[in-house]
Amino acid sequence: MYKPKLEKDKRCPLEYGMELFGGKWKSRIICVLNEKKILRYSELRTEMVNVTDAVLATALKELIHNQIIQRVQYDEIPPRVEYSLTQKGQSVIPILQGICNWAGLYYQEESDKALKQCQKCNFRIP
Amino acid sequence: MYKPKLEKDKRCPLEYGMELFGGKWKSRIICVLNEKKILRYSELRTEMVNVTDAVLATALKELIHNQIIQRVQYDEIPPRVEYSLTQKGQSVIPILQGICNWAGLYYQEESDKALKQCQKCNFRIP
Repeated sequence: MYKPKLEKDKRCPLEYGMELFGGKWKSRIICVLNEKKILRYSELRTEMVNVTDAVLATALKELIHNQIIQRVQYDEIPPRVEYSLTQKGQSVIPILQGICNWAGLYYQEESDKALKQCQKCNFRIP
Repeated sequence: MYKPKLEKDKRCPLEYGMELFGGKWKSRIICVLNEKKILRYSELRTEMVNVTDAVLATALKELIHNQIIQRVQYDEIPPRVEYSLTQKGQSVIPILQGICNWAGLYYQEESDKALKQCQKCNFRIP
């Protein structure tokens, strides 16, 4: 596991939270897994659209390390690996939904209205 | 203003929201301005700790562009410039507080308990 040389300057639980599920890819992975419940790597990659394997693998590793996502490997031939949200991961959903609702108010004004409703997750703008 | 060559793949208001206030620096700037209300650049830089001018200036530009922060310039000698949260910026605070509360539950288990309460902003872990 990659370890940064300098201790990160985490000042507040907020920053810890942002690190856990912030950013484009992590939040999208969580949303997609919330909708689909269980996905194999290739399915997850298809859902993500436009992500490289390196970026997706790094985001997954961090999410697993931080216990947001669990990776279950079945000893079959060929081996099967499935990803899903942990309980901690599920508890992030209301927060993401709150951000989504907030952003929807402004997104509506500033962006294409057709995109107001998420096409991939089940979040609905009120 | 810097414009990326490729249209960003924003799929959902959530991702728009994450872009607006996500990440370490933007959320910290918003928290600090929420606590201090109005700050000059040098004061803000001091509050941020360990940030380079390039990083802080870029984050500020984006926050101003997205109407989270307002920059008011007074025509005095020497000129005075002040930064504060807009109404839109203030509406982000409950979201950050929600993330802070959520993260506090896990931060408590996983990190130094002395850091459980933010030293810089007014967020309190329940």
